[in-house]
Amino acid sequence: MDRALAGLVARRRDQLDFLEEDAPPLLAALSQAVLGPGKRLRPAFVYWGYRAAGGEPHGPGAERAIGAGCAVELLHACALTCDDVMDGSRTRRGRPAAHVRFAGLHRRERWSGDPESFGRSVATLLGLLLSGWAEQAVVEAGVPAERLPEVLGLLDLLRTEAIGGQYLDVVQARRGVAGEAEVRRAVTYKTAKYTVERPLHLGLAIADGGRLREALSAYALPLGEAFQLRDDLLGAFGDPAVTGKPFGQDLREGKQTWLLLRARRLAEPAARELIDRSVGQPWLRGERLDEVCALLVGCGALAECERRIARLVAEALAALDAAAPPAPARAALTALAWYATGRWR
Amino acid sequence: MDRALAGLVARRRDQLDFLEEDAPPLLAALSQAVLGPGKRLRPAFVYWGYRAAGGEPHGPGAERAIGAGCAVELLHACALTCDDVMDGSRTRRGRPAAHVRFAGLHRRERWSGDPESFGRSVATLLGLLLSGWAEQAVVEAGVPAERLPEVLGLLDLLRTEAIGGQYLDVVQARRGVAGEAEVRRAVTYKTAKYTVERPLHLGLAIADGGRLREALSAYALPLGEAFQLRDDLLGAFGDPAVTGKPFGQDLREGKQTWLLLRARRLAEPAARELIDRSVGQPWLRGERLDEVCALLVGCGALAECERRIARLVAEALAALDAAAPPAPARAALTALAWYATGRWR
Repeated sequence: MDRALAGLVARRRDQLDFLEEDAPPLLAALSQAVLGPGKRLRPAFVYWGYRAAGGEPHGPGAERAIGAGCAVELLHACALTCDDVMDGSRTRRGRPAAHVRFAGLHRRERWSGDPESFGRSVATLLGLLLSGWAEQAVVEAGVPAERLPEVLGLLDLLRTEAIGGQYLDVVQARRGVAGEAEVRRAVTYKTAKYTVERPLHLGLAIADGGRLREALSAYALPLGEAFQLRDDLLGAFGDPAVTGKPFGQDLREGKQTWLLLRARRLAEPAARELIDRSVGQPWLRGERLDEVCALLVGCGALAECERRIARLVAEALAALDAAAPPAPARAALTALAWYATGRWR
Repeated sequence: MDRALAGLVARRRDQLDFLEEDAPPLLAALSQAVLGPGKRLRPAFVYWGYRAAGGEPHGPGAERAIGAGCAVELLHACALTCDDVMDGSRTRRGRPAAHVRFAGLHRRERWSGDPESFGRSVATLLGLLLSGWAEQAVVEAGVPAERLPEVLGLLDLLRTEAIGGQYLDVVQARRGVAGEAEVRRAVTYKTAKYTVERPLHLGLAIADGGRLREALSAYALPLGEAFQLRDDLLGAFGDPAVTGKPFGQDLREGKQTWLLLRARRLAEPAARELIDRSVGQPWLRGERLDEVCALLVGCGALAECERRIARLVAEALAALDAAAPPAPARAALTALAWYATGRWR
């Protein structure tokens, strides 16, 4: 996967040769966005979707599945780059976010205007480049012409759902206090379909394995929801050294999560009031942040979240058993379910 | 063209049904971005590129050319939406820009956080949606599978060059005082290739008319440069009621144009110093702005710009004559050259 991504980035660098002396900062950001450390979870689902449909482990079919995996990874690099701009996140995977690095370039060069606005502009252009290259990754992987419309249609669906889900997320964070149906809708689109279901479907389409589509959706959707719940727990309680994000960022941003929803329902009135007054406030740090985290644990919301993750993973694995893909795909998709939702992630 | 775009937007609306009660503001912005008034100049070049290669005026081939025109128009809607965020432009075609409308929604609903940042986030998501749909417009237009890789490759090139050109433009505006080679490089990529050359090539690819490629480039590149020069003149001196942009915006932003380059070379030292101290400054309004505009005229830069436009258009038309496309295409491409670079545009 990393080799395929590196080849893709090299071809893209050639395409940007015309930027001449202005190329280096953009190319460096491109490499960091695509080739930096990452779990490559979505390409793994593409590949194992392909294998679930009986695709050969090596050879041209596998290369196409890896190419489609690159496409999804490019979209993910775009999502992370643009999310950091939208959330105002300063770091990504423990390093400065793209918009922060371009703002730094502006400051070092003593250019005119606002460095932060320059950083946001260039990071957005980088995001547009990354997203635009997804289709080309599929075309260059040699997907047969007669399968291209279906594969490209799925890629389009994946992107549209992910952006729509992100829109719901942004709106809910600003509006505050979302209901359960709303929160789950955003999770389905911004995470479950984007991270698990559509990547699996892409793999199936590469292998022409349409008949497994619904069976793998029954595995993908609960697993994707469990993945988001784990993400929410890491966002609230995770060690910044592991998550690469500052402590308490999700709570400061007012992200509407199932964890928060449960806490509001389970907490005593005074605790609930404290949560509602604190979440979504940029000043939520230090002791007050510790207090809110303690309330999320104390009211039982954390424990409920863990139980729900376990239940959703069990549901996903039962669906996988029922789908009965070939043994290697079954083993890999089982392992991926645990990996994606585990506490050590 | 407008009918094809309307059909495309309708299909996209269906795809966003899952946004439920949160859909309306995004759908309204989508419609305004794609279906609002516009010259549809790029789709016209796609269509007449197709006709230049001998494509039939009606029927399935023409439908494909119109579909590829929709793709380019979606990318253009993305470019305008994102440019307005980057430039901080409040209006587009005389109406509030997308990010301004979403900031207004945030204020009306009294949501938490910063309305401007919310507006920028949602406008960026809208831009990503618009850009991502370009490939699908080509696929849905029924381009034969065996021609898809070439057509999609050109669309990818068009987008990459446009984003790269915009990056050069943003960097140059902040760095200030660009040289002639630099300015012309940005113009070639952000305008000449994006607006004229690649749309024509897309049309050729739809009609399988590869042999005209270089001949039409010889028409496209000078014409595209002339188009940008006209845009620079309108940006500096144009009537806001016609351009839909506030008076003097390009000068306040510090856009590095050929007009400015010539003015710096032609102006007396004192005038040049005044230009350099004023351009790129957010306070450049009122009398000082009038003074700078008068200097751009007085030093002869405006007249040089007009002469250069005339020379470039003549060069483009000579290349068109040499390419000798069928008579209707020749007539239309001649008319488009005048239309795109005319003072009344």
